[in-house]
Amino acid sequence: MTLQIDFERFKSNFNELAMIGKKADGGIYRMAFNADELVAREWLEDQLQQYGLKTRRDEALNIIGRYETEANKDLPAVVIGSHIDTVPNAGALDGALGVLVGLECLICLKEQGIETKYPLEVIAFSDEEGRFGGMFGSRAFAGQLNPRIIEESVDLNGVHLSEVLRSLGVDPFQALSASRPKKDIYSYLELHIEQGPVLDVENLSVGIVSDITGLFKWQVQLVGAANHAGTTPMDMRKDAFMGLADFAHEIPRIIDENGGEASRITIGNVALYPGSANTVPGQVDFSIDARDVSLEVMNELKDACRKALSAIARRRQLRFEFVETSMIYPVACDEAMQKHLVNNAKKLALNYKIMPSGAAHDAQMVAKIAPIAMIFVPSKNGVSHSPHEWTDWHHLHTGANLMLNTLIDIAQIP
Amino acid sequence: MTLQIDFERFKSNFNELAMIGKKADGGIYRMAFNADELVAREWLEDQLQQYGLKTRRDEALNIIGRYETEANKDLPAVVIGSHIDTVPNAGALDGALGVLVGLECLICLKEQGIETKYPLEVIAFSDEEGRFGGMFGSRAFAGQLNPRIIEESVDLNGVHLSEVLRSLGVDPFQALSASRPKKDIYSYLELHIEQGPVLDVENLSVGIVSDITGLFKWQVQLVGAANHAGTTPMDMRKDAFMGLADFAHEIPRIIDENGGEASRITIGNVALYPGSANTVPGQVDFSIDARDVSLEVMNELKDACRKALSAIARRRQLRFEFVETSMIYPVACDEAMQKHLVNNAKKLALNYKIMPSGAAHDAQMVAKIAPIAMIFVPSKNGVSHSPHEWTDWHHLHTGANLMLNTLIDIAQIP
Repeated sequence: MTLQIDFERFKSNFNELAMIGKKADGGIYRMAFNADELVAREWLEDQLQQYGLKTRRDEALNIIGRYETEANKDLPAVVIGSHIDTVPNAGALDGALGVLVGLECLICLKEQGIETKYPLEVIAFSDEEGRFGGMFGSRAFAGQLNPRIIEESVDLNGVHLSEVLRSLGVDPFQALSASRPKKDIYSYLELHIEQGPVLDVENLSVGIVSDITGLFKWQVQLVGAANHAGTTPMDMRKDAFMGLADFAHEIPRIIDENGGEASRITIGNVALYPGSANTVPGQVDFSIDARDVSLEVMNELKDACRKALSAIARRRQLRFEFVETSMIYPVACDEAMQKHLVNNAKKLALNYKIMPSGAAHDAQMVAKIAPIAMIFVPSKNGVSHSPHEWTDWHHLHTGANLMLNTLIDIAQIP
Repeated sequence: MTLQIDFERFKSNFNELAMIGKKADGGIYRMAFNADELVAREWLEDQLQQYGLKTRRDEALNIIGRYETEANKDLPAVVIGSHIDTVPNAGALDGALGVLVGLECLICLKEQGIETKYPLEVIAFSDEEGRFGGMFGSRAFAGQLNPRIIEESVDLNGVHLSEVLRSLGVDPFQALSASRPKKDIYSYLELHIEQGPVLDVENLSVGIVSDITGLFKWQVQLVGAANHAGTTPMDMRKDAFMGLADFAHEIPRIIDENGGEASRITIGNVALYPGSANTVPGQVDFSIDARDVSLEVMNELKDACRKALSAIARRRQLRFEFVETSMIYPVACDEAMQKHLVNNAKKLALNYKIMPSGAAHDAQMVAKIAPIAMIFVPSKNGVSHSPHEWTDWHHLHTGANLMLNTLIDIAQIP
């Protein structure tokens, strides 16, 4: 037996939320705590209340809807979460989809009177997209905040997080109390668009996430000597850009030797000095963004990058320096929960794929206090953070049904 | 028998000119026609007159000193030229050295009463460094100006060439009359600092220039797709930067297969879009500066660059476009004049090298109307266009003596 969501209701809710913060150019902008995002929050709370779900905002302003019974109210909760804030010029799916699917699942079970062993929650986490650094709500929820973060977080317009919280009637340092003890959370599920091309290219309905990749970022500097492009023979140059080109050429080898399918190395930002067409570049500053699902592989990628750059610098008589500007550890999804997802995907006859997540999600933070699992639905052409972000309705329907049926398996009918 | 310049006089003149336009930070700035450059012009004219050389400014404000006799005054002249304007924050040698050596040679011959078959001229060409596009004076001298260039030339501050000429008492379009007929110029010699590292590295006193390299400049664009650096697998990317890195990697092969020792290919300017560390670059714009002494080789380098970029673009699914923003033809130095230089270098027991010039010089323009030859003296560490530009005194002495003795060979003692 499988359960089905009410797709017409889901679609209508989806379309309503997608109108909030919609701009003339077609993009949506609900920056955390801006006027439109506050409207979206009220809309969500109205929905939760309309269907009789217990609703509250915690001290980090996460919106929590809860379906509990007399029998299960003291047991740890099974939580479905994501976020309703967006980047500028966003599409309708990133974040909002996960919250709407969670809402729909809880409504379905409640209206059919299905009672689970564990209580259920749907959460919209505050500021996932990073007005104040990213994942503020899930960070608070997982006990990963500290007073310094609260004190120092400022948005790009110079507005302090503490001011914003105060203006919304919350004592900023109270956000630390949003932290939920491990014993309160039985497990965490999140459905999200893939934000990559894999499911779309391979024509699959859903992805079952095995891991969320870790990430290291380096800012690298190679320094040689700026010289006249006409008078300096090729073999007397200390050309910093050619050092970078050598390194870029090594990237496929570095991944082949040390990484695998989930490895990524990207050079996204490059600055040459002096940067004039007729001068051999004396200096290049560039970024390395490298990811993998295994900490061991990440460390091997680091070693290989460092060795390659050192050797190139020696060969080309350049000075090589780097700073690690970021290090985020990979997170594995819970194996038992993945099994539940696989079983239900099979029961629903879905074309699925077990795959890593290359992007960061609230689930990553929640993993600090509970087992997690994630469902991906396909992103058309791999596009996200854009008004062109889209997923076919039938994939949304399929993904939501997989969530509903898996939720029951995990939260258990007693 | 060899002649010798008066090195103490040369040094004293050198030091005097080096004080004009000297700034507090040690650099010299004599932009064409600025206050300091006008002082330098007057200083030069004073010197010429003091030693009894016929002195005039032509219609392009080139300063011309002439040593002629009743016997030779109607014959074509042997000219030594260069320039006394400088780039901002310049050293004392670039340009000025060639004019000072020419001045010293004419004084030597005049004061010793040595009369040559052909009359002798020393010329300081106006605006070599490019306040108004570069080589204005030698361009006029060689008949390479046209009314449009005169009309449209504007400096970086929006000042028009025509205004400047008018303010100096010259009708701008009269500059066209500075053009010298071929029959007036027997040959042209220029001594210049190398502006590259070759003589310094190889510990040589002088270079005898075989050719002045030609140059083509391309502005290239590769367009792929900007994607999330975490969610886009390596084999699903259209990474524009990796296309550029592939091309850079091919540069040594392209030169090995099509060019030679005088070939240069430089990537000096690179811009990535969107240029954020966590986004696969969807577009890269970059410059190619390529040089050689042979037009045939230049055309082969062009073909090879175009083929390499097309193949890389196909392989990486990028769109490839380019614009040729500049094409300057190579110029060969006169073989007979080179032979005179080699003979005199041997007579003076100098360590010399026959080598191309990778930089542009007034000689390139004069080549349109006369056979040319050039002498290089070593640039310490290859540095030029900098207050650190320097050449040891003994190399200056040696280079000037080579000029003096070669000048007599070419201008001939009847």
